[in-house]
Amino acid sequence: MKVMGLSRLALVAPRYADVTVRPDAIAFASGAVDVLDASHVHATLDRALAGTTHAIAMSARDREYAPPLSSLREAAVDAMSRPPDTSIAFVFGSERYGLSNDDVLRCQSRCRIETSPDYASLNLAQAVQLVAYECRQAALVSCGEAVADDAPTAATHEQREALIDHFERGLLAIGYLDPDAPKKLMPRLRRLLARARLEHEEVQWLRGIAKAMLRAKEPVPR
Amino acid sequence: MKVMGLSRLALVAPRYADVTVRPDAIAFASGAVDVLDASHVHATLDRALAGTTHAIAMSARDREYAPPLSSLREAAVDAMSRPPDTSIAFVFGSERYGLSNDDVLRCQSRCRIETSPDYASLNLAQAVQLVAYECRQAALVSCGEAVADDAPTAATHEQREALIDHFERGLLAIGYLDPDAPKKLMPRLRRLLARARLEHEEVQWLRGIAKAMLRAKEPVPR
Repeated sequence: MKVMGLSRLALVAPRYADVTVRPDAIAFASGAVDVLDASHVHATLDRALAGTTHAIAMSARDREYAPPLSSLREAAVDAMSRPPDTSIAFVFGSERYGLSNDDVLRCQSRCRIETSPDYASLNLAQAVQLVAYECRQAALVSCGEAVADDAPTAATHEQREALIDHFERGLLAIGYLDPDAPKKLMPRLRRLLARARLEHEEVQWLRGIAKAMLRAKEPVPR
Repeated sequence: MKVMGLSRLALVAPRYADVTVRPDAIAFASGAVDVLDASHVHATLDRALAGTTHAIAMSARDREYAPPLSSLREAAVDAMSRPPDTSIAFVFGSERYGLSNDDVLRCQSRCRIETSPDYASLNLAQAVQLVAYECRQAALVSCGEAVADDAPTAATHEQREALIDHFERGLLAIGYLDPDAPKKLMPRLRRLLARARLEHEEVQWLRGIAKAMLRAKEPVPR
């Protein structure tokens, strides 16, 4: 949860009332103990959901009268696009039994994580991780926040053309290019460089190679 | 993996050579033992990547000359939109140390799972689950989206490594590379070729250039 920026954990009637301070829980939290510390234990799902505006039942199983089903991605995008004062809950069942019908009916929508039809047994920790991840993705998109990237300077048209010319002379010098039958080598090189989205700095050292090719065939000074 | 429809697991130099038949591994597989049974153990990453056409290093850490970075979603969509004969590898490091620089440079792209800047410690099992999930999502979306039949054949890992080795010898021969001060030229070349998504045919003529460089410095027969 913490890895994806989530912090509000509510536990409903856990097996051990002191679960959040038990050594194994603390060990599993591996540094994210603040999430455990800030968590709340509730006797019932109703109490846990008090104050939330929208609850999503994580349940693949089809049930009568169950709220509408969506994919995890749809559910996350929907959750994150609601007004800021909205309080959303993703509701998970226990590892072994999942959610009861009664639990599901207390939620406003239902969500299924798309898994392989051959083997759908996703464990609880993995399901929580996927939900947390999709919420973060949806939140990043809806904030317009992009992956920070100090992109390198792209090569200009002139730089690229000068490089291709230089390389061609180098390839002629080392005898790779036959001026009478160039075999479309230069268009092929252009295509490769275009796909690579050449950077300014790369033009520099690629021209170094061209220079070395030209020098390799210079007559040795005596 | 199995939950998301993935089946090909390759392990590189695991701590225990018999890891896939150890009781704890079988217990953790919880029913998906066929994935373990069909897995392969390799001595090196190169062997594990043999036959793959595109490898994605799962690594958030920035490194010099690392291949281009994308988000997990972008990487999954890109992977699933390649032609059907493509063989893609997502490459994970160990729980404790992650991937080495050398491992990352053997891959054609790099991928970061967007986590909270405050707490980015995602464990290996969770990272694998998120990757498997995004691959399945991307596959479901791209299902039916036809890939052009005449798409060029991508170069395999071995072809690319052989080319890089051949080119290095050529650059040494023409005196561009100083064996005592290679100045990171080869990592730079790797990075450029990774971005270009090298095709099989391009490997052929690029090796032709390497050959011509080597020949250019051969002593002239008398």
